[in-house]
Amino acid sequence: MAIGKSVKRIDAVAKVTGRARYTDDFFMPGILLAKYLRSTIAHGRVTKIDTRRAQRLPGVERVFTYKDIPQNKFATAGHPYSLEPEHKDVEDRLLLTRHVRYWGDEIAVVVAENNIVLQEALQLIDVSYEEYEPLVTPEASLTEGAREIHAGSNNIIGESQYAVGENIEKALASADVVLEGRYRTQMCQHCHIENHIAYAYMDDLEHIVVVSSTQIPHIARRIIGEALGLPWGRIRVIKPYIGGGFGAKQDVILEPMVAFLTLKLGGRPVKMDLSREECMIGTRVRHPFDVKMRTGVNKDGTLVALDIDALSNTGAYASHGHSVAGAAGAKSRALYPRAAIKYHARTVYTNIPAAGAMRAYGAPQIMYAVDCIIEEAAQRIGMDPVEFRLKNVARLGDFDPLTGKRFESCGLIECLQRGKALIGWDEKRAARPKKQTGPVRRGLGVACFSYASGTYPVCMEISGARIILNQDGSIHVQVGATEIGQGLDTIVAQMAAETLGVPFDRVHVVSTQDTDVAPFDTGAYASRQAYVASNAVFRAARELKAKILEHAGRVTGILGGELDISNGNIVHGNNPANNVVSLREVALDAYYDKDRGGQLTAEISYKTRTNAPTFGCTFVDLEVDVPLCKVNIKEIFNIHDSGVILHPVMAKGQVHGGVAMGIAAGLYEEMLIDTQTGYIYNNNFLDYKIPTTVDVPDIGCEFVETFEPTSGYGNKALGEPPIVSPPPAIRNAIWDATGVQINELPMTPHTLYKHFKKAGLL
Amino acid sequence: MAIGKSVKRIDAVAKVTGRARYTDDFFMPGILLAKYLRSTIAHGRVTKIDTRRAQRLPGVERVFTYKDIPQNKFATAGHPYSLEPEHKDVEDRLLLTRHVRYWGDEIAVVVAENNIVLQEALQLIDVSYEEYEPLVTPEASLTEGAREIHAGSNNIIGESQYAVGENIEKALASADVVLEGRYRTQMCQHCHIENHIAYAYMDDLEHIVVVSSTQIPHIARRIIGEALGLPWGRIRVIKPYIGGGFGAKQDVILEPMVAFLTLKLGGRPVKMDLSREECMIGTRVRHPFDVKMRTGVNKDGTLVALDIDALSNTGAYASHGHSVAGAAGAKSRALYPRAAIKYHARTVYTNIPAAGAMRAYGAPQIMYAVDCIIEEAAQRIGMDPVEFRLKNVARLGDFDPLTGKRFESCGLIECLQRGKALIGWDEKRAARPKKQTGPVRRGLGVACFSYASGTYPVCMEISGARIILNQDGSIHVQVGATEIGQGLDTIVAQMAAETLGVPFDRVHVVSTQDTDVAPFDTGAYASRQAYVASNAVFRAARELKAKILEHAGRVTGILGGELDISNGNIVHGNNPANNVVSLREVALDAYYDKDRGGQLTAEISYKTRTNAPTFGCTFVDLEVDVPLCKVNIKEIFNIHDSGVILHPVMAKGQVHGGVAMGIAAGLYEEMLIDTQTGYIYNNNFLDYKIPTTVDVPDIGCEFVETFEPTSGYGNKALGEPPIVSPPPAIRNAIWDATGVQINELPMTPHTLYKHFKKAGLL
Repeated sequence: MAIGKSVKRIDAVAKVTGRARYTDDFFMPGILLAKYLRSTIAHGRVTKIDTRRAQRLPGVERVFTYKDIPQNKFATAGHPYSLEPEHKDVEDRLLLTRHVRYWGDEIAVVVAENNIVLQEALQLIDVSYEEYEPLVTPEASLTEGAREIHAGSNNIIGESQYAVGENIEKALASADVVLEGRYRTQMCQHCHIENHIAYAYMDDLEHIVVVSSTQIPHIARRIIGEALGLPWGRIRVIKPYIGGGFGAKQDVILEPMVAFLTLKLGGRPVKMDLSREECMIGTRVRHPFDVKMRTGVNKDGTLVALDIDALSNTGAYASHGHSVAGAAGAKSRALYPRAAIKYHARTVYTNIPAAGAMRAYGAPQIMYAVDCIIEEAAQRIGMDPVEFRLKNVARLGDFDPLTGKRFESCGLIECLQRGKALIGWDEKRAARPKKQTGPVRRGLGVACFSYASGTYPVCMEISGARIILNQDGSIHVQVGATEIGQGLDTIVAQMAAETLGVPFDRVHVVSTQDTDVAPFDTGAYASRQAYVASNAVFRAARELKAKILEHAGRVTGILGGELDISNGNIVHGNNPANNVVSLREVALDAYYDKDRGGQLTAEISYKTRTNAPTFGCTFVDLEVDVPLCKVNIKEIFNIHDSGVILHPVMAKGQVHGGVAMGIAAGLYEEMLIDTQTGYIYNNNFLDYKIPTTVDVPDIGCEFVETFEPTSGYGNKALGEPPIVSPPPAIRNAIWDATGVQINELPMTPHTLYKHFKKAGLL
Repeated sequence: MAIGKSVKRIDAVAKVTGRARYTDDFFMPGILLAKYLRSTIAHGRVTKIDTRRAQRLPGVERVFTYKDIPQNKFATAGHPYSLEPEHKDVEDRLLLTRHVRYWGDEIAVVVAENNIVLQEALQLIDVSYEEYEPLVTPEASLTEGAREIHAGSNNIIGESQYAVGENIEKALASADVVLEGRYRTQMCQHCHIENHIAYAYMDDLEHIVVVSSTQIPHIARRIIGEALGLPWGRIRVIKPYIGGGFGAKQDVILEPMVAFLTLKLGGRPVKMDLSREECMIGTRVRHPFDVKMRTGVNKDGTLVALDIDALSNTGAYASHGHSVAGAAGAKSRALYPRAAIKYHARTVYTNIPAAGAMRAYGAPQIMYAVDCIIEEAAQRIGMDPVEFRLKNVARLGDFDPLTGKRFESCGLIECLQRGKALIGWDEKRAARPKKQTGPVRRGLGVACFSYASGTYPVCMEISGARIILNQDGSIHVQVGATEIGQGLDTIVAQMAAETLGVPFDRVHVVSTQDTDVAPFDTGAYASRQAYVASNAVFRAARELKAKILEHAGRVTGILGGELDISNGNIVHGNNPANNVVSLREVALDAYYDKDRGGQLTAEISYKTRTNAPTFGCTFVDLEVDVPLCKVNIKEIFNIHDSGVILHPVMAKGQVHGGVAMGIAAGLYEEMLIDTQTGYIYNNNFLDYKIPTTVDVPDIGCEFVETFEPTSGYGNKALGEPPIVSPPPAIRNAIWDATGVQINELPMTPHTLYKHFKKAGLL
């Protein structure tokens, strides 16, 4: 049995030895390089662009400007195509633009033999602009009379709301206590190790091949087709190993451009490889949110109402746009399903880099606000914050109040209890002085989250698997789900091994998705892959196993129904020790007997129509050095109900990475923008502060295992959730330590100084 | 409807524009090159090999000799693995050898950074030999006491016989006339444009990827595993476009070596690219045959008996070995099914280059002998040669006298009648003088053939197809059958278009076979691909169509059974003009409806258990310039019953190429060997004479279309057969012109001079 075992990760050796090939490790003779000319203003219009000097530079192949590109607008968000017009992504992009919408916008592209020529050529292009006032905040872009960033939008890309439970005003009126708050989150960037990179070429006059570091090859195929106005079947996207994405590669960034360039350049290979500086501003960022909250609680600790009003800043282009705010709002329902909740959100255009999908897709923003005010509510009624949460969070038997779907698994209560014990919540609180006064003060914090396993019912959920019995009795698994560093290939091999009854090390996985042949799956996002893929892999493996046993029956003369597969051998079902014949012998017979058999394969394309919520919490114990305005985390625990844990070591890895990213969001990272010009000050790793291993404490991680019946192996989401609850838990602990509520992220020394000063601590 | 139409060949533009990528068009950073050190004797044993100087040369990565290689012997023939021990190919190869068996045998391999270093390093290796007498003819190697080329073989690799009809001696005794003859064919080489080339690399520690110009990727995968002693599932073979094979790439030549080298060199890419000189001697050649014939005929023109005794020279290593002589013998059965036939063949080892599969696999050798003696029989009884053949060749209603299988289609009589009319047989014979005396004399000749569509029942026949409905309603077809220049991809697209009811240009074919994901098929050989693939493609397309119509039923609310697909649209079955919905709309619904559908695909692995004989004949009208000993073909026609002609233009192309190759075999090509030393004089295109377009006459080509019910679209073999009958037809015409029987190939001026001199013409 392979599920639940920390088997050797399939790509571990390949990656640590440097043998694994990423997009930039491939090379084609005669490959050309391309680079964008980016605007040097944040808002305006190109009045003149002269590329003649660049075009004449030896080594320059071609220069294209906004004048040379197809005029069909397209959407870049990595969502499944939607059959519902109201769910279509906003199509507001061209391959290049004349209307500049952020500092670094793409107005031309140079194709040249090498990078030196490219850089020189970019400097030889003369551009004149008509400049407009940059609108870098929602307030500015929503000012009456503000210039429209996209014509006809009124600078609002989307607005939505839902309400569950009692009428929110009535509920608030009925509550013993009502609180209000306002919470802001920052713009930050994914900072995946491998920058965006893609190249394209044509082997004939019809088909364009794009090799890209993408989370979503099948979606990229469609969007390239849409952007170029070509039938999608003529586009082929190949995804090699990729060095992280975190959602920034759930957008189609470079792929349509390299496809366009090879099409224009006689099929020659053309590569674009963004620098870190370009990646930080020119791909996607996390939507900054400004969330106004009201909550009502009763003195007995009942959470009565949550009124959430979010303003999301999507920046210069739609990308995932309002979907992020929309999806984020749903998460609090599953966390506090018995409260009356009203959620309203608006997403606005501004002249900052385009925001898109980023790990947990708006949940960190909304959950931060929710768990800040939840904490305030608990404090206000004088209830232990953990007890308050235990009383109000989701339990087995609850259901989503909007969809009416029952939670089939829910271990959040146990997560809270486990975390409380691990951090020594009661003991530490009992042991410390009532009021802390010294320069270094200690605080405890807690925060919860729920998250979803995929996007249904908002989006369609699909996964595909094809499994082959090889000639030698080993197994090849081909899935549409994409390995993006999260370990999906290993998980898929475990699933196939488990259901087929073969040893894990006899299962090979086709890691590369090639859209011409890979089963269809929309890709790695929404913490969906292991969940939706499990349903396809399980069914395909079950079908292949039945075919194998049927053939084994022919080989052995024993009825297939009496046979089973164990450890790679065909055994009598009632006596697994009794090997009847090896899988290799059955395979050889199936392939090579002249009259019977054939290659045994099974393929399943499966639509998952559930979206199991996953739950968890963070407990943190930290010190605040008040004079230095510095936070020092002493202990931090993330406890997750992610259903069955398929691979404990990799699951811990996900949590470690997610918590580190959560700490980064809580204490470190922010893209700093000049509000006058829209210029980003810190588009690089010298100035944009990511915590290193020195800054990140040891991370405690535990799982409360439940069994989620809607997935193939009882598992549910784990990819994104670990990032969600650390920031509010840290915020609550700082409050606990200092008595100061910090209602904005990140809580850097600068931020703390401002608030400590205001609170009179300094 | 796409079948029978000369649609635009799928890869035409890619190939003529140079966009199509062949193995050498790929490049990997850091790729190493490797080259064999070849023996400078034809028979002997290495007594000392010193590689130290080569190893020290800067730029040399490693030198391996026969001392460094795995000791498991393997077979190289591109046959399916056989479950019957008696049908297993002879395993007589190691990756490198100490025992030298032909001039050019592979005793070491150098790996270096570039070709200049490689060449220099090869010269720095010191080798001493113990030399044995080269046994270059079957007579020499069969001499009592001759040294064994392979221990224990007695220099005989195989021997077999069959007999059908009456006892051969009784039949001969009963015949009115008995004739004897002896016919010899030469050693020649395939001369595919693209030489053998392969490279290998590893992306991890487990899997070896081999990219190769091969006809048989799935077989190569197995043989590499066997040669290296690795599980086959760890080997992945990728076949890009290939520049011809003609059977020389139905052998595993370079693949195990490049796999071995990358395995030994830390997974670094290693490429071997044979020169033309190496390709001519170090890959495979056509088996020279020495055939003794007896035949018995009655004066009424009845062919009573054929006694065939063939001696086949396989050269230094087994490769396809005796299979060629075995398979070749079967062909005369289907051609003259009502005669008593005894066939006996032996295949012997000698110290000449290894013979393997070459277009028509022994049939040109045996059919040459058969149609020479058939001609003599007709002449002896004073019967028109065409009439004699019309009386004796296969007709509908005949059956294979050995297997008892009825011929389901047979148009040979019509082929003969058509050819006779085309060439003006009767008119020309009537018009010319009874006896020709001048220097330039005119002759007419005819010869017939039958051939098989695949290898069943000797070998297992399998083909696989997977067909995908794309998001945009277009189709992707993935087959295991390999495009090797013959046009298979186009044919497969036609088949899928035909059965699915979509326009040809909306069908995309995955041309590259990647054994990790390509459906299983043993490859391009035995004129099998279109025949066996038709059975898989037809069934897969039918299954996919049913799935599409079922889903269209859900979309439209009309019962699936009432719907059909026509020209890419869903139509009412009873009114094809009534488009209900487009295939694109059905596809979008199947992919993207949240609740129903999924990716629609169908995959079939099908074993064909028939082997439809194909038939045809050549008519030739030529001039012999007696003093110059030169043959000048005036007219030549090949007429084929190849079942339904799927693509008339490509079918003609096959015939044109095959007839040109047949003319080459008849009049030009021969590898010349020094019988003392075993040295090949003409291992290059300066000295080895291939006819050019200037030498090849216009070729007439006609088809007698029949319908073969055992194939998906009525088609049967056409790839190899066109090569078979031109040489005997030319020989018979030379005889007709000059009265001289030339019973050896090729009939070059040298040969003609010898025979004309002997006959007193000169």
